[in-house]
Amino acid sequence: MPTDKPVLPALYNTLAARDTDAANFVALTPIAFLSRTADIHPQLPGVVYNDQVHTWSQTEQRCQSMAAGLQSLGLAPFSTVSVLAFNTPEMFEAHFFVPLSGMVLNTINTRLEADTISWILDYAEAGALLVDRELLPQALPGLRAAKAKGNDIKVILIDDANANEAPAIPEDIQCIRYDDLLAQHSRNREQYLPTTVADELAPLSINFTSGTSGRPKGVVYHHRGSYLMTLGTIAGWAVPRHPKYLYTVPMFHCNGWGHVWTMTAMAGTITCLRYIQPTHVFDLMEQQKISHFGGAPIVLNMLANDEAAPTRLNPQNTVNCMTAGAPPPATVLAKMQDMGCEVMHVYGLTETYGHILQAEPQPSWQQKSAGENAELKARQGIRFPMTDAVELMGSDDQPVPADGETMGEIVIRGNTVMTGYLKNTEATDEAFRNGWFWSGDLAVRHADGYIQIKDRAKDIIISGGENISSIEIENALYKHPGVGEAAVVSMPHDKWGETPCAFVQLRDGQTATEEELIEHCLQHLARFKRPGKVIFGALPKTATGKIQKYELRKKAEKLAG
Amino acid sequence: MPTDKPVLPALYNTLAARDTDAANFVALTPIAFLSRTADIHPQLPGVVYNDQVHTWSQTEQRCQSMAAGLQSLGLAPFSTVSVLAFNTPEMFEAHFFVPLSGMVLNTINTRLEADTISWILDYAEAGALLVDRELLPQALPGLRAAKAKGNDIKVILIDDANANEAPAIPEDIQCIRYDDLLAQHSRNREQYLPTTVADELAPLSINFTSGTSGRPKGVVYHHRGSYLMTLGTIAGWAVPRHPKYLYTVPMFHCNGWGHVWTMTAMAGTITCLRYIQPTHVFDLMEQQKISHFGGAPIVLNMLANDEAAPTRLNPQNTVNCMTAGAPPPATVLAKMQDMGCEVMHVYGLTETYGHILQAEPQPSWQQKSAGENAELKARQGIRFPMTDAVELMGSDDQPVPADGETMGEIVIRGNTVMTGYLKNTEATDEAFRNGWFWSGDLAVRHADGYIQIKDRAKDIIISGGENISSIEIENALYKHPGVGEAAVVSMPHDKWGETPCAFVQLRDGQTATEEELIEHCLQHLARFKRPGKVIFGALPKTATGKIQKYELRKKAEKLAG
Repeated sequence: MPTDKPVLPALYNTLAARDTDAANFVALTPIAFLSRTADIHPQLPGVVYNDQVHTWSQTEQRCQSMAAGLQSLGLAPFSTVSVLAFNTPEMFEAHFFVPLSGMVLNTINTRLEADTISWILDYAEAGALLVDRELLPQALPGLRAAKAKGNDIKVILIDDANANEAPAIPEDIQCIRYDDLLAQHSRNREQYLPTTVADELAPLSINFTSGTSGRPKGVVYHHRGSYLMTLGTIAGWAVPRHPKYLYTVPMFHCNGWGHVWTMTAMAGTITCLRYIQPTHVFDLMEQQKISHFGGAPIVLNMLANDEAAPTRLNPQNTVNCMTAGAPPPATVLAKMQDMGCEVMHVYGLTETYGHILQAEPQPSWQQKSAGENAELKARQGIRFPMTDAVELMGSDDQPVPADGETMGEIVIRGNTVMTGYLKNTEATDEAFRNGWFWSGDLAVRHADGYIQIKDRAKDIIISGGENISSIEIENALYKHPGVGEAAVVSMPHDKWGETPCAFVQLRDGQTATEEELIEHCLQHLARFKRPGKVIFGALPKTATGKIQKYELRKKAEKLAG
Repeated sequence: MPTDKPVLPALYNTLAARDTDAANFVALTPIAFLSRTADIHPQLPGVVYNDQVHTWSQTEQRCQSMAAGLQSLGLAPFSTVSVLAFNTPEMFEAHFFVPLSGMVLNTINTRLEADTISWILDYAEAGALLVDRELLPQALPGLRAAKAKGNDIKVILIDDANANEAPAIPEDIQCIRYDDLLAQHSRNREQYLPTTVADELAPLSINFTSGTSGRPKGVVYHHRGSYLMTLGTIAGWAVPRHPKYLYTVPMFHCNGWGHVWTMTAMAGTITCLRYIQPTHVFDLMEQQKISHFGGAPIVLNMLANDEAAPTRLNPQNTVNCMTAGAPPPATVLAKMQDMGCEVMHVYGLTETYGHILQAEPQPSWQQKSAGENAELKARQGIRFPMTDAVELMGSDDQPVPADGETMGEIVIRGNTVMTGYLKNTEATDEAFRNGWFWSGDLAVRHADGYIQIKDRAKDIIISGGENISSIEIENALYKHPGVGEAAVVSMPHDKWGETPCAFVQLRDGQTATEEELIEHCLQHLARFKRPGKVIFGALPKTATGKIQKYELRKKAEKLAG
């Protein structure tokens, strides 16, 4: 603990060593929620996937059996178990059986290219890989490279009949099928492992962040953090009993925003889906009477604008949606609302176990117009219950005023801040300073305390001494009907130091000129914020679909030079 | 922590000392929820009492000011601040400002006699006493005794205009009025103390248990336990946003079952009431649109059977009620249900911060009859989310089978088990054994895992080698229309070792003979469980209304001898 134990009065002398008895001190771990839910609601459906329905009792039995199976592979305690999989039941179960077996879960972004996956397997020192057959080709170079180095990574294969493709399994790769390992190590209640851990601060998972440049960084979570994330999300999102949850968020993102554990704790029904396809999502929403889901704004966008979008997502009840990332456009929010969806915007980073700010709805917002509501809800909000403190630090390391204008860097303190970056002291040191985790995101605080992101620290444009938010210009550009995608970066400028340079991809069949877009921006922005230049064309992106601003910055520099 | 840190692979070497940075390790404390709620919902009503309404911002300001006021009295850190008060706003606020000031909260049962109060003030080494003027006479002997010993306890007086009585303040007692202390130390946001603590295992409160014999024991709670109690209650009871809570549970019982902090975390509105009087409760339920309250079965009984009972407790919505203690009779449960009240039965002890088992409703119960539901809901249930494990231990220290018949002692493990008894190593040692806290309560586990209390260990009757639950016989007696109150204890018996002896107080105007009641019991119980003797008359009780079985046991022994 960061501070020494305080000195207590003599009154407490006889209790000095009493606070860590096995009866009154239990290490916090989110895997304990599975055991409780399976005990209480054994017959309720826990995990649903196409025609598979596993009750909570079956889910527990599968996880316990797989933990035994994993232990049988002869790996050392705390070995890294990497996972490259879609949102199928096996992926869900891995969030319990990997820690249950005493090992550490490392889910990998399925959109990454083979080279980065290979790098991750090597960097995280993976002892085993749980891989979906369709994704096996992406993992092969990594598996072979490890083998060549003498590390024969154990491969557990998810061979899903619902897969679009079933690539051949090369002869040089030894795999055991998930279902076989499960069947071979089938366990009954008397043989179950305890869902306890020795140390709540020991590693639970490693989540690699896909930065927009360079190699990803391995963010380490511990059991205490994920336990508090679970309970804090229940309180902050006011999750009711038995939520019907649709797993649209990839579980490889911050352990699916921790919802694996949250929905288990509330004895929900978790509907898995392999591919995100709007009509399938709409069907599941109605069939499964979905009450909760999460998704990036792009998912909301896709749902709201799909031709097959139903009048109501689920005619039975309100659908609660947690969304994170850039704020969804007001029109999308309004459309989702019309479809019976209550959207809560949140903010977080891989480094903070996912969401730590939430646009908590205010009772007073109910009297406001749809437009005002969209504005209010588009902000990232206030701290979740498990988040101790969030401040916006100005350049003097002092909190900025809550004036809705002065930008500061978001700094965070709480038990859901990562332990640090794996094998990367430099990056860890840079992230932790003065008792805060420094997010690199710039934001303003409004008078009501709600935080609104303005930019990544490195994406800010400083023109004539004025800070300009690239997001603000992008938002203005998006209001033009012709703009499909937009990204704004700084461009060196002789007079002003920097000036905004906009890269725009027009919608199919739409046209717009540079002058037209600059003129359009002037309708929405102060003059000094207008783009100095607009360049048309496709935008470069990372494997995860993030726009590579550093590539654009290089282009802008060349154009200026 | 109970175990040493596990050895991690070299992969984690650079993170070895990283898990307790000020940014990623924050000591858990329930007082942090006040700061969050006041930040987010400053204008929502927080605490309501007659014509007083304090918003959350005002409540925070009052607590911060009182913490400063308390600190001004010159007490050492972790000094005991005793409180003898009704459920008024001051009592609520003490749950925040006492720990905020760095001191330890000791709420005292208002029904205790002056002698015991005096003993508690001395035993807990009270440095200050927050006392309601109406209760001052009960505290005077203790204050004077302390003064005589050279410990001049600081007295803070709650002088409530709503009190039934305002006894004179003796000249030898120096008091400062609550409102004066508050006004003298009024603080603004810039001066607020941080709602953080250095050590989550440091004492937060002392709650004396009123045993049925001997001096009470001082149960010590820590910040971590109460924080987890708060979040675990939100998850277990599925508390929604902004609950409208009526504080019928005395806050001196396990810190009001922890609901002070729970309702604060969910930004509820807490309605205080000084005296429990059915028509006043009904009025508040409707006026304040109450959605949640807690109460002993006697309170439900009183409400359900009151002449002025309305058709619906609150016509606007369901009222959720948490009840603890003896199971409410089926007729009371049915009546409450009819009045729009959803009752959840829980079990806990002062030693476990309050509730740790809950009769979690099963979706399948909705198809059952009202009678079956009452039976199912009358059980104490399964563990709350923050409770790690609950077992029923047989005489061989092994868990008993879940057959609904075999009794075992309830043992508990979890972070909401007390640190221990203050200055009482013997009692603490007795309560903690083999990694469990031993409750002294005997129960059975049903096939569905739900636990049902049968008796206190020391109240069990062993007749001819068979265990007989005194509660079972009492329940049978209560089914007789003439029985107002009943208590069964063991009576020495030449042949059987022990035999049940029933003490019965008849309802006003009702009659029944010994033979009639024994015959009645035979309709409901196995022959060997029938009372060997029935004695009529008023039952002796403690200050808190508990029947003094040890007095009855003495009587029974005399009668047998």
